[in-house]
Amino acid sequence: MHGFYSPKLTPSGREVHLPADESRHAIQVLRLGVGDQVLLLNGHGVRAEAVLDAVDYRRHTATTCRILQAVAVPRPLPHITLFIAPPKSKNIDAVIRAATELGAAAIVPVLCRFGVAKPDLDTTANWTRTVIAAAKQSHNPWFPEIKAPITFTDALKTAGAHGFFGAVPPPAGAPCPAALTATDQQQTSLWIGPEGGLAPEELSALNAKGLQPLTVGQWILRVETAVPALLAVVLDRCRPLPTTPTRDTVG
Amino acid sequence: MHGFYSPKLTPSGREVHLPADESRHAIQVLRLGVGDQVLLLNGHGVRAEAVLDAVDYRRHTATTCRILQAVAVPRPLPHITLFIAPPKSKNIDAVIRAATELGAAAIVPVLCRFGVAKPDLDTTANWTRTVIAAAKQSHNPWFPEIKAPITFTDALKTAGAHGFFGAVPPPAGAPCPAALTATDQQQTSLWIGPEGGLAPEELSALNAKGLQPLTVGQWILRVETAVPALLAVVLDRCRPLPTTPTRDTVG
Repeated sequence: MHGFYSPKLTPSGREVHLPADESRHAIQVLRLGVGDQVLLLNGHGVRAEAVLDAVDYRRHTATTCRILQAVAVPRPLPHITLFIAPPKSKNIDAVIRAATELGAAAIVPVLCRFGVAKPDLDTTANWTRTVIAAAKQSHNPWFPEIKAPITFTDALKTAGAHGFFGAVPPPAGAPCPAALTATDQQQTSLWIGPEGGLAPEELSALNAKGLQPLTVGQWILRVETAVPALLAVVLDRCRPLPTTPTRDTVG
Repeated sequence: MHGFYSPKLTPSGREVHLPADESRHAIQVLRLGVGDQVLLLNGHGVRAEAVLDAVDYRRHTATTCRILQAVAVPRPLPHITLFIAPPKSKNIDAVIRAATELGAAAIVPVLCRFGVAKPDLDTTANWTRTVIAAAKQSHNPWFPEIKAPITFTDALKTAGAHGFFGAVPPPAGAPCPAALTATDQQQTSLWIGPEGGLAPEELSALNAKGLQPLTVGQWILRVETAVPALLAVVLDRCRPLPTTPTRDTVG
């Protein structure tokens, strides 16, 4: 089923108008029409199955959807903020798509000493379009928030004390770092440095804040691989533990 | 430092000739010359730092490297076989690159009932070229082996009893599956089905063999995200536990 961004969708609404560009995409590109079923996402957790109910086939921009069933999906835990030194523009798209599919809560472009890209607010507005496209494809009703670019020092001030940073793998044959077990963690962060690496003072600051170095595998990862791989490990390690009520837990 | 494929490299060699295409890439594309330092990988665990020692600047195809230091890198554990229903050709490149960077031991194209691509041996020869490119970039001396395409039934026969398959995420709000802790596992596998999903009889066969369903996040992942994300979780869960010799372990 095709997904559409519908910012005005509420859990109790009976019908909703699609934004002009979503409407145009539905009617002109996908050739949908009255009676076709669609998935609507408001970006803040509401998701609905709906049917196209009224369509302006001439102007393409006025489409009304009748809601069949809407649901407010709880925000998934853990709530991960991805702090990332933006890579070159050809790679940022893959990074934002992966972070959206995996359910990052926010993406913060961090200006690091060895960073190669210094995005402005126009650039990050484009990133929001990538988030919307990826969220529609993955059916994620919670769109990651794209924050304004910020310096490393300011980013670290806003960050919580729990989190991980992508580190250089240990030398081949070196003993593995201690295996962490899964823990119930609601708020965490993942920091991904630039291609040239984090500067020594940036690494020291991350360590001093209590963030943990994270590696996966033994080889150098491109940023397009590092983001999905390390986000997945953070999700897996921090996810809510199942509550199995037993006699021992009573009292 | 630029990496090159050097299949004849041995841990004890003093010099080695680059294959013609690697030589041409070094001299004609990267404009390297005598005295430039390079990284050599033989694809079977040997890695060397070397300098270009003799270069034919006219034909570009005869380059000799003098080995400075060669090392036989132990094969990383766990040894993961990636069984994958090949996606459309535009996406397979990203999948093979990610699997190579993360250190998969082998990639097996599996012909599933709902698979969209049926690669032949010419196609998988191209995949080997992608493996070499990704291994050089990630400095991985252990190239994943690309196996011949095989039917689902035959693939399952060759697979070991330990492994995971990419599963559909549980419905939003459903309780999380039990958190697995890391275990010391030497051989494992990851199965990634086609875009249309695994057929019911394929899922039953994977379950019957004892393989475990694996999900990360709550939303639908494109194959380019699923492969690095799930490979990373398998690596993290199965990696060797650190050996901390204490009195309790003696006797």
